[in-house]
Amino acid sequence: MPVAPVVAAYRGEAVERTPVWFMRQAGRCLPEYRALRERYSFAEVVQAPDLAAEVTLQPVRRLGVDAAILFSDIVTPVQAVVDGIRIRPDRGPVVDHPFRSKDDLARLRPLDPEADLPYVLETVRLVRGALPPEVALIGFAGAPFTVASYLVEGGKSSDYRHTKALMYRDPDVWDDLVDRLAGIALAALRAQVAAGAQAVQLFDSWVGALSQADYRRFVLPSSRRVLAGLADLRVPRVHFGVGAGHLLEAMAEAGADVVGVDWRVPLDEARRRLGPTVAVQGNLDPTAVGAPPDVLEARVNEVLAANGGQPGHVFNLGWGVLPDTDPGALRRVVDLVHAHRPPA
Amino acid sequence: MPVAPVVAAYRGEAVERTPVWFMRQAGRCLPEYRALRERYSFAEVVQAPDLAAEVTLQPVRRLGVDAAILFSDIVTPVQAVVDGIRIRPDRGPVVDHPFRSKDDLARLRPLDPEADLPYVLETVRLVRGALPPEVALIGFAGAPFTVASYLVEGGKSSDYRHTKALMYRDPDVWDDLVDRLAGIALAALRAQVAAGAQAVQLFDSWVGALSQADYRRFVLPSSRRVLAGLADLRVPRVHFGVGAGHLLEAMAEAGADVVGVDWRVPLDEARRRLGPTVAVQGNLDPTAVGAPPDVLEARVNEVLAANGGQPGHVFNLGWGVLPDTDPGALRRVVDLVHAHRPPA
Repeated sequence: MPVAPVVAAYRGEAVERTPVWFMRQAGRCLPEYRALRERYSFAEVVQAPDLAAEVTLQPVRRLGVDAAILFSDIVTPVQAVVDGIRIRPDRGPVVDHPFRSKDDLARLRPLDPEADLPYVLETVRLVRGALPPEVALIGFAGAPFTVASYLVEGGKSSDYRHTKALMYRDPDVWDDLVDRLAGIALAALRAQVAAGAQAVQLFDSWVGALSQADYRRFVLPSSRRVLAGLADLRVPRVHFGVGAGHLLEAMAEAGADVVGVDWRVPLDEARRRLGPTVAVQGNLDPTAVGAPPDVLEARVNEVLAANGGQPGHVFNLGWGVLPDTDPGALRRVVDLVHAHRPPA
Repeated sequence: MPVAPVVAAYRGEAVERTPVWFMRQAGRCLPEYRALRERYSFAEVVQAPDLAAEVTLQPVRRLGVDAAILFSDIVTPVQAVVDGIRIRPDRGPVVDHPFRSKDDLARLRPLDPEADLPYVLETVRLVRGALPPEVALIGFAGAPFTVASYLVEGGKSSDYRHTKALMYRDPDVWDDLVDRLAGIALAALRAQVAAGAQAVQLFDSWVGALSQADYRRFVLPSSRRVLAGLADLRVPRVHFGVGAGHLLEAMAEAGADVVGVDWRVPLDEARRRLGPTVAVQGNLDPTAVGAPPDVLEARVNEVLAANGGQPGHVFNLGWGVLPDTDPGALRRVVDLVHAHRPPA
């Protein structure tokens, strides 16, 4: 199978046109997705391979993006291991009995992907079989810190007070917790690659809440374990967190081939800080997709100009598609990115 | 009146010991505050000078901090001008009819502090009269962007989609909106200084949601108008936003004498980027106050070490005191900071 442009760009190879996909592209902004969600819950879609595959493929058809990303949630693997984790509409993951002490560690047995997540792997196989070779399928998992934050807080947090309290009060329990979560993420990602994913993204969505010193002490080792554990598979490893501009270098050091950048850090600065061996992904402000067409076009061109035509750039938003986004505007972004040619 | 240590440190002068106060120090973590709030709403406290003064003074008595900060809300001045803005417990400011178009601008008449906010100015006078000369009284206001975000979103937001949409869609209306809000903030701050505040903090709490390019285009001019408009009063002007580490230089350029830094950016980096003429305030992670005593002490010392004994540092948290914080731990922070002597 020829190398898909997204994969080539992730590897830093020259590509004819900049590839593009969108975080949370299979989501609430697509009417065909909303129609399907009127009949099935989030959990029902994730656990039914034909539905999950359909939802994964919808944005490829409608938007013309260069990659599909597995429709799933960052807590899907840990949900298969721990009882009492649910995805609530507009609240995200909630955990009935938050993890707060050493005794809770026993609730985290290792993940056996073929037994625990057969529906995810079947979804990967269905999607890969349905996609043309030039469209990559990206697998993903939540990074240990971010998954731990849901387990410890009991859901989404604004300050991560319980998570940080556990780090500061009982670093041994914390280290054990994120090590177990690293094992789960690694097993999930290896199985997704074996089933057909050609790149993986490790989402550390909320890690920007930490200082770089805390990141290095409490997060980097477990994230590195996940990323290093994928090295032999030779698929590009993307690593991303929102509001994590102060951590870009450290996230690359954790073993990322590609660092996702949110809109707060211009790509020229990100590239300067990351050096020539790390590719970048990003970074249009998701709110700019709702701007008037001339403003949107200018913003897309600013992102491309900030990258300056260097190889190793995959266009994306700096965070997920907003629910009220017009799919037509997303399609225009794809067309603008594809029509762009770097200055000779 | 002798110069209070906080004011001297804000000016970059050498002080015997590092001064310290806490954002949101007059708040839910103090039992005497909670007792008072069982009898009076937030709005009732703000509008009753004897109560507001009492609540402003409580942390000075209990914690031994070097500054009192006026008990108020960042929307208090605009509340006096616009109907239908309320402070809801655990939700913050909510606006009944959000500002979305040119027609809404007429709702923002200029502020006449003596007529519109007599209770705030009386509070300032009462507090200043009750404080010993070595404890500074800090006035404050919300910066135009952050106040605009409440008016446009209708409350606290996670993505500022309506605020950014207004910027992108109708920059003239946006500019007019923040210019009017700059006038309101400036009038409020000038009146607070006339009534006895010896320093002011302009809170741009949520501005970290913007890229530096958007900050410079859509925010800096109105913030500069506020800060420049205070120059003749010769009081230190502190400027702060949370998660705004990528904007530190631009916020200094807006006219701050002192830039508040959250815990994500170490003070040595902040000082390197801001240069020798700008003082800094910060930046202990608020969650660290709940850590075991040895960890807390180490964290306090790390902040002090990162500043490296340079003049022009006022110790603070990197964001507000968390509601479940033990006041005894805050008192220990004050004592640790005061006991610290920079290496000779």
